[in-house]
Amino acid sequence: MRGVILHGPGDIRVEERAEPVIEKPTDAVIRLAATCICGSDLWAYRGVDTWGEPVPFGHEYAGIVEEVGSDVRNLRPGQFVIGSFFASDNTCEICQAGYQTSCIHKEPVSGAQAQRMRVPLADGTLVATPEVPSDDLVPSLLAASDVLGTGWFAAVAADVEPGKTVAVVGDGAVGLLGVLSARQLGAERIIAMSRHESRQKLALDFGATDIVTERGDDGVARIKDLTSGLGAHSVIEAVGTQESMMQAIRATRPGGHIGYVGVSHDVQLPGQELFFSHVHLHGGPAPVRRFLPQLIELICSRQIDPGKVFDLELPLGQAAEGYRAMDERRAIKTLLRP
Amino acid sequence: MRGVILHGPGDIRVEERAEPVIEKPTDAVIRLAATCICGSDLWAYRGVDTWGEPVPFGHEYAGIVEEVGSDVRNLRPGQFVIGSFFASDNTCEICQAGYQTSCIHKEPVSGAQAQRMRVPLADGTLVATPEVPSDDLVPSLLAASDVLGTGWFAAVAADVEPGKTVAVVGDGAVGLLGVLSARQLGAERIIAMSRHESRQKLALDFGATDIVTERGDDGVARIKDLTSGLGAHSVIEAVGTQESMMQAIRATRPGGHIGYVGVSHDVQLPGQELFFSHVHLHGGPAPVRRFLPQLIELICSRQIDPGKVFDLELPLGQAAEGYRAMDERRAIKTLLRP
Repeated sequence: MRGVILHGPGDIRVEERAEPVIEKPTDAVIRLAATCICGSDLWAYRGVDTWGEPVPFGHEYAGIVEEVGSDVRNLRPGQFVIGSFFASDNTCEICQAGYQTSCIHKEPVSGAQAQRMRVPLADGTLVATPEVPSDDLVPSLLAASDVLGTGWFAAVAADVEPGKTVAVVGDGAVGLLGVLSARQLGAERIIAMSRHESRQKLALDFGATDIVTERGDDGVARIKDLTSGLGAHSVIEAVGTQESMMQAIRATRPGGHIGYVGVSHDVQLPGQELFFSHVHLHGGPAPVRRFLPQLIELICSRQIDPGKVFDLELPLGQAAEGYRAMDERRAIKTLLRP
Repeated sequence: MRGVILHGPGDIRVEERAEPVIEKPTDAVIRLAATCICGSDLWAYRGVDTWGEPVPFGHEYAGIVEEVGSDVRNLRPGQFVIGSFFASDNTCEICQAGYQTSCIHKEPVSGAQAQRMRVPLADGTLVATPEVPSDDLVPSLLAASDVLGTGWFAAVAADVEPGKTVAVVGDGAVGLLGVLSARQLGAERIIAMSRHESRQKLALDFGATDIVTERGDDGVARIKDLTSGLGAHSVIEAVGTQESMMQAIRATRPGGHIGYVGVSHDVQLPGQELFFSHVHLHGGPAPVRRFLPQLIELICSRQIDPGKVFDLELPLGQAAEGYRAMDERRAIKTLLRP
């Protein structure tokens, strides 16, 4: 079968790889209906993260179960399933508390930019849709695998509730779906921070009420202007840099909440400023599994359409162009058809 | 009147100071029943914090109202009152959300180690007891002014609830009263981290179920041992150093909560470790005002006895010895009688 291999910074190739097989009795093998490129893949594409290349890439997936191991109880071949970037048993004390990405048996999932893939701990990781969905729902279900699940977790971590004002730092797919999530969770006002017209438009589509184009201290000042000088109740951070984290902390009112989901890169948070900011800080790798049943229901009942975040669709064989388009910010998110 | 002046590192003097007067119509002047020395005062005593000395010192207070300004509505001379280290209006949006120490009109309160003091924003800052309390309740009511209120906030910020396991980093007065607070809030298991026998004893008195004497990585390993390898649900951090913050983060299970109230000194939190820790982080200057009514009720009905944290009592004139005893860790907390 064919799959994406990262050979080094900027070097993406689609190559023949061995067919995935059941290695453990808790595994499943799925045939991908669609896969995609994640903003976090760009850290490696740009050479910031190193993985000991060459390495099969991709961690967002939705598709049809082809085979299950002998210990898999809840899934059967033919079902359409969605999973997330960490496999989890979904039964340990940490999973039961809703933190499946810190499951005591967690395993990273990779190699999803391919025709088929092996998913470990299938019973705890994969969630089946009620029936095989129509094709037009596939992009949205794929979005639930990571970017929607992550944006939703960020909104929950930021304690978004009816009546609150939410600011969103980061206009990538996660930030934009953080806007959608905040709208679903009842936020009164949603301020999207973006200077790109196409992303602003999508943010407004997803429910943003205000757009702030300024960044850094100027961006913070604009948020304060819009909130009687107090700052937002809830801030979603979806970038992961020192600047974006400080922007989030400074844009939040005392007692407010920050949900941060941008994978931290070279971030050092100053203790004293954090102390006196009085914010709540919570985030990390989104436990998407916690939210999948709810997100699948919202998508299958067509209450939300997160698939709009894919503004480029390519055959798997053109994955390299998909990476380039995202790297150059020509595309928000690239969907790949295997 | 006489009051404590900090002249510089290690240089505490009790001197004649001008009598406090009503400066603004929202002020009150109180006669102190008792005052005390705070662990955070030691940062200045040791020369770590500088204040532009000489400066009147102290911020914990309880006593009798002597005079109120013309705009004060809720207080009258003769009442016994307790306040906290920031004056607050208790009416702004931030106060109403429970963050009075970030009140939009907040003012620091100082000069409490004295016979009398001026308290700004008296209506929003001071809480009166139902009647003038008997002398034996005064130490506990004084404790509510800061160390109990701060320990209580830490326990609330750490989301202490019935059934949870709580670890407490720091065996100063705040940490010890964090133990008491966690007990009141229903924690099932409370692990106090202390290597000092007298403090261990008080921790057990206040409701600790386990004592861990190790620190740093060894202390974290002991907490993990006691919690099936997962870490505590809730961790109270009451020191404010890099080591204590990292100990708190590493001792908390994924999805768990840290309430940090040790004033941060030279702390830099590594973003990536925090991200993958999956902890909730909340803290800062405790909004004691939020909790004062409840704490006063618990004390006046003799359900709690936080005054036990004072293991040294001196006349105000011997304040210098009180500072020395705390600096050398001969005393947990010194009460001063004006």
